[in-house]
Formats: sequence, C-alpha cells, structure tokens
Amino acid sequence: MRLSRYFLPILREVPKEAEIVSHRLMLRAGMVRQESAGIYAWLPLGLRVLNKVCAIVREEQNRAGAIELLMPTIQSADLWRESGRYDDYGKEMLRIRDRHEREMLFGPTNEEMITEIVRGYVKSYKSLPLNLYHIQWKFRDEVRPRFGVYRSREFLMKDAYSFDLDAEGARHSYNKMFVAYLRTFSRMGLKAIPMVADTGPIGGNLSHEFIILASTGESEVFCHADYLDKAVPGAGTDFEDRAGLQGLVDQWTELYAATSEKHDSDAFGAIPEPRRLAARGIEVGHIFYFGTKYSAPFGAKVQGPDGAEHMIHMGSYGIGPSRLVAALIEASHDEAGIVWPEAVAPFRVGILNLKTGDSATDAACEDLYARLVAAGIDVLYDDTDERAGAKFASADLIGLPWQILVGPKSLAAGKVELKRRVDGTRELVSPDDVLERLTA
Amino acid sequence: MRLSRYFLPILREVPKEAEIVSHRLMLRAGMVRQESAGIYAWLPLGLRVLNKVCAIVREEQNRAGAIELLMPTIQSADLWRESGRYDDYGKEMLRIRDRHEREMLFGPTNEEMITEIVRGYVKSYKSLPLNLYHIQWKFRDEVRPRFGVYRSREFLMKDAYSFDLDAEGARHSYNKMFVAYLRTFSRMGLKAIPMVADTGPIGGNLSHEFIILASTGESEVFCHADYLDKAVPGAGTDFEDRAGLQGLVDQWTELYAATSEKHDSDAFGAIPEPRRLAARGIEVGHIFYFGTKYSAPFGAKVQGPDGAEHMIHMGSYGIGPSRLVAALIEASHDEAGIVWPEAVAPFRVGILNLKTGDSATDAACEDLYARLVAAGIDVLYDDTDERAGAKFASADLIGLPWQILVGPKSLAAGKVELKRRVDGTRELVSPDDVLERLTA
Repeated sequence: MRLSRYFLPILREVPKEAEIVSHRLMLRAGMVRQESAGIYAWLPLGLRVLNKVCAIVREEQNRAGAIELLMPTIQSADLWRESGRYDDYGKEMLRIRDRHEREMLFGPTNEEMITEIVRGYVKSYKSLPLNLYHIQWKFRDEVRPRFGVYRSREFLMKDAYSFDLDAEGARHSYNKMFVAYLRTFSRMGLKAIPMVADTGPIGGNLSHEFIILASTGESEVFCHADYLDKAVPGAGTDFEDRAGLQGLVDQWTELYAATSEKHDSDAFGAIPEPRRLAARGIEVGHIFYFGTKYSAPFGAKVQGPDGAEHMIHMGSYGIGPSRLVAALIEASHDEAGIVWPEAVAPFRVGILNLKTGDSATDAACEDLYARLVAAGIDVLYDDTDERAGAKFASADLIGLPWQILVGPKSLAAGKVELKRRVDGTRELVSPDDVLERLTA
Repeated sequence: MRLSRYFLPILREVPKEAEIVSHRLMLRAGMVRQESAGIYAWLPLGLRVLNKVCAIVREEQNRAGAIELLMPTIQSADLWRESGRYDDYGKEMLRIRDRHEREMLFGPTNEEMITEIVRGYVKSYKSLPLNLYHIQWKFRDEVRPRFGVYRSREFLMKDAYSFDLDAEGARHSYNKMFVAYLRTFSRMGLKAIPMVADTGPIGGNLSHEFIILASTGESEVFCHADYLDKAVPGAGTDFEDRAGLQGLVDQWTELYAATSEKHDSDAFGAIPEPRRLAARGIEVGHIFYFGTKYSAPFGAKVQGPDGAEHMIHMGSYGIGPSRLVAALIEASHDEAGIVWPEAVAPFRVGILNLKTGDSATDAACEDLYARLVAAGIDVLYDDTDERAGAKFASADLIGLPWQILVGPKSLAAGKVELKRRVDGTRELVSPDDVLERLTA
C-alpha cells in the first residue's frame, strides 16, 4: 500500500480523553475513531490488525475441530426468557422494541440462540460432539464505557459453544479449546497463563481465564513463574487424542495460578520464593463448562447409544478480538509508540523514502516495493513528501516491525538501512539482502 | 471437510413458510435458519458462500482503489439529525434508547457517519480522492419481511463512499465503482446490466442499478439484448486512466436499459425488434453520485489548490452480499437444487463415498481427499453411512459444482465418476486424471 493513497490519519498531539496507553496510541496511530460513547469505527490501519487477530483465532478454532457459523446481532427477548436470563441481565443488555412493539435485544452473548439452533436440528448422539463458533459484534451497555476498545459497548467477540453427550465428552471439548487458546495467544506473541476463574453470569463449575501479564493490567494475578517458560503445544497436536490432550491440560494447570478473586495465599506461599510471581494481568480469553444449564431449560437433548434421551452437555469459549487489539498494545509498546508482534502487525514492513522526488531514491523504493509485494509481503510504502523525521516517527508510532530506510547517502554505497522496531537496531544492507532476509 | 464432522442440517421436506425458490433451497440446504422475523443465522454452509461473495467484492473494491474500514452498527441519532434524515427515515429505522436514554439507532446506511469521519480528518484537496468502504451488518425494520435473506431486516451490506474535490473528480470515482461492479458480478458468474435508476432516499442526480435477469425477479426490465454478450473489462483495467474508464462506462451505457420505473417505450421501440429484451430482473447493486448533499450540512470541506474552501463531492456505492447469495440462487438452480457458479460454491468439489465401510472404497476416497486438500481445493467429503441415493440428492441440493462418485464397481476398473453439477454429465476417469482436471 502506498501511503499517499491510503487513509492513515495520524494525530501528533496526545488525545486528552484517553486514560490508558492503548487507547492513546490507537487514537494517535489512526486505528480507531470514537463515534459515540463506547462505540468506535475501525479505521483502515486498525481493521488490518483486527482482521489479523481474527484470522489467527479462526485458524486455531478450525484446527481444534470447531465449525464456523454466523448468528445475527439482534435476538428476540423470548429466547432469553426461556433460559431465565432476560431479567437477570439487567441494564447492560441493550433492549429494543421493533416497529411492531416486539421485544428484541442486541446480543451480549449467544448461549440461548446456539442452544435453540442445535435443539432444532440435532436429535442423535451420532451428530455429537459438535463445536460451533462465530465471530460477531456484540453489545454491552456499560454504565461508564472508557479505555477505548479495551472496554467498549459495541465489541467483537469470538464465541464457541460445545455440545456433547456426557460430561466426559464435554471435558474433552473443553480441553480442545484450552489448548487452542494456548496456541492462539502464543501465535500473537503473547504469553497467556490459564488461571482458575469465577464463572459469573455464564454459570457452571469449571472455568479458566487466560491472562497475559502487563504492568497496566486491570487485575492482580499470582502464579508460578515457570508458566512464562512453558512450551505451548505444537501445530501437530492431535486434538482427537483424549488422554494426550488431558495430559497437556494437566501440565498447564498443575502449578499455581490465580487471579486475586480466587487467590489462595497459602498455596502461593508454597511456591519456592524466587519462583513466586505477583503481577498485574489482562484477561484475554475465558472458557466455561456448564453442563446442562442451558440445554435443560431449552430441552436440548439427544437419543444416546442406549436409546434413552440425554440432556446435552455444553461449554462456551470466548475471545474478544477487538479488546485483544488493545491488550496487545498494553503488552507491547514503548515511548515512541506501538511495537507490534509480526503476526498481527498491520503491515509487516515499511519502506521510508527519505528523499521523495529524488529520482534514484524513488526508483530504489519503487523497485523494493514491487518486489516485496510480489513476494506476498504486507508493506506500507511511505511515498509522501513529509520530512524524514516525521516518517521515522510515524513508522514507529504505528509499530511497523521492519522498516527499510532508503536515502541518497546509503544508496550511493548500494545500501539501504534495515531497522527492527522491537529494539531499534539498524543495519546497512543491500536491497537484495533485505529481500532475502524478509522472505526467508 | 469431512461431512461426518461437519454441521450440515439438510431438510428433506420443503419448508411451508418459504415463498420463493432461493428461500426454500437455502432452508433445505441448511444454509440459514430463521431466528426472528426477517433475522437469520448463517449456518456453516451458508457462511462459506457469504464469505466467498464478500471476498470477491473486497478484491474488486481494492483493485479500484477503495480502502476498507469498519464502522459500528449502532449510531447516534444526533448524527442523523445533522443531515435531516432522522425524521425522514420513518419506521424502517430501528430506533433504540440506551441505559442513559440517549437516542441511538441500528444503522441502515452510513452516509452520515462516513461524512463525519472524513470531516474530522481531511482538510486539504491533497488527501483526495478518497474512497472508503466497509462490509457490515445493517438493519431495516421492514413492515413485512419475507423471502428469507433476499429481503431480511438484518442484512450484510458493502457500502463505499467516495470523496472528491469537484464534480469531475467525483465522476471518475463513480466510473471506478461502475467498472468494479461489472467485474464483481461477472466473477460470480452473473451477467449484470447497469440501468439508469431512481435515486430514492439517498438522493442525487446520477445513479445506476445493476440488474441480473431471473424469471423470478421482482421488477420488469427492458434492455438491448447486446448487453448479454458484452465483454466485461479485464483485471488489467487501469482505474487511474480517466478517459479510458469513461470510455468503458460509455460503452456500457450507450444502449437502452431501464427498469419499469424509468422505462421509455419509444426508446425501447427504437431497438431492432429481435434485439429487444423484456424480462424480469433482480437488483444486485446500486451506485449514486449526490454531489454535496451530505458534505454541505456536515460542513465537510477541503482547501483546494486555489486556497479557497470547497465542499467535498460525494458518491455512495452499495452491494448487499447476504441478499446476493439469494439472488445467485434465483439465477441458478434446477429441480434438484442449487447450481453454484464455481467462484462462490461453498465447496468446489464433493467426494461421494458410495460404499462407506468398504476398505478399497474408503482408501480411494481418503487418498483423493488428502490430495485435493493438499492442492488447496475446497472439498466436502461425504464419508457418512447414508445410502448412495441420499448422497447424490444432497450433493445436488447444495449445488457442488464437481462431484466425484467413488464406488467399488468403477474402482475395480481403476476409475471414479466425475460429475458436473451444471449439466449432469458424468465421465469415468482415473483418480489421477480427476486431480489433474480439478487442479488445472
């Protein structure tokens, strides 16, 4: 993408309304714009990151055998009366009356709707196990939305729902998502630690929150430091191997890890002192097993191999991609701006033309740009007539992992500078070497 | 995808509530499920088609230089008061009050919001031209929703908005979208004819509807039959070549084409009789140039090269991907079910195991499946224990363009049957030849 033809409205001044660093940086980097309280438009740069986050989430859901569908945003109130949650949910639910005065709502979650769908089609244990997920916009009418997309009213959610004949099968489905979540966050460059969690309004008796450590995190967390060095299960993990998967989950839950709500200071004290980690954390995922909590009121049952009817055992599994974009920034930034992990960077590479209008510099940039694009690399070419200092600042602010600085001086020696955003190191290399390094 | 692990709830009986063929077939093929009046969940098979439609739309928008962002579904009523459309819109607008009694709405279109965004950032003609688009769920509270996703209340829309310094620039932006739309529909296997159209509530004085012919179409259309054989502009079209693009648009508008609302029987009568085409059509896209209708009330202006302030000239450009899925079926089906054009088929290839459990048949299917997947082909492998007749019926109902029938008899001769959905032709070929044919 040529910056001169792109829409990247960078703000030089720090927006006053933003209280946390991810919100400030997302506004300054032209990633989002507030449209109403807690409601944001995703500008082109922000949308690119959001899409990359979703793509990783999707790949790992699919790898674990979950199947994607897409439920609507508007739901009928009657559906929520069946589960009894219509009154429970309180003012956070955005309630709507349509032109015929029918009571509707903007869905904050989808346990009811997915249970109704499965009830409508699935009659036999032979159709199970089943895990259905979607990635859809949801709404929670927070009384005081703030922190940008980190806690917005309209937000994007990946929610998966598993359906099994019995508790044992449901545990396997839970374990699949547990491992899928470990892989998902790891691929985004995050170290997420599964912690025993409260189940809240979703219900159930087995639940883990996936927490990343960040000094600006909202909650206090306590865990064994060994979690930080644990190897995440590989892409070749056999999700159908029940015992193997349970073994992986056991390895990831045997050491102490808890949020402050579930903190047990004796258990924490039993960790050898140098390995005790008390820090701040951000929740990036939450998984639940809740048995028949929704299938029972909805009458979602199947005929088992024994010929009898069985209530389906369910779990649900959430990741908020829009919130995750903010969490990624909270976990990875410096004074100059965002430091994107490569897998979720809006563009992996930036080309900075340090003397636009100089024919040799322009030609070298055009050549590099064409070759990187042909190699399938996401590249943002700063071909504007801004001065070099402003281009450096913008590329660092928006966090491009690799920046190729092209100017007449180094070009005269047949070189360009290759800069790594993460540590600021620069190297003089030939354009051919740049290409080789970035396509390796 | 193995059918045994997929979620494809096929209905054998014809649903009574469905009045038009696309609605019947989408319900029977397990593509969608109604959740409330005019509100549908997209089941996995339907979502695959919707995603393929969106991918083509997106590629052609990007090719024409449009830039993707994503605006929220919920908008503030105040935004619509600025344009004066809040009261105009009537009961089709889904109006909402949040917990603080603020007036909100579920966006039916985005002229107001995008104008507010551009007003907030764009100050100079140097930032123009600009074309911003998004693909987002919208809501129109139809008094009597019916025909499934063909006329639903919650629907997916690609809407693009162009911003130019003057009318001449805006005409070029309009022409870019005109050509992009020709290419978009053509890539989906549709012959879409641009027809002069009313501008309705969007406003403006230049507008085309893109209409496909289908016997079940909602409107009467009249055009020169030469449109059916016209070659669509190629992928190499230079969208920056103003004169060239205007020439293409002129070629596509010089012959008579009009919907009944704009019909001129004298002009139609002037077409040589054998080339007069009166038929039924479905609108699949609509483009508008409306000058300063929104920029003026919003004060969206830029400084021009002359130093003076200029109101921005705008256009908007819509395609409804969810409705388009239904239109594709209206245009392409037979008594056995849907006949998908390959580019939008949920799976391009089906493998039908005609004797599941027979070791040679299973092995041949597994081998073919593995090789097709490795070649990057979307394939649905029917590995269930249904009888052969049911498998034939399902594959035809869901419209798989290529079906590989694998049974013991032909396998004994080293062959499988390759069936084309579009004409039902079958050919006995070796598995190696199947692979070569489908990957060619």
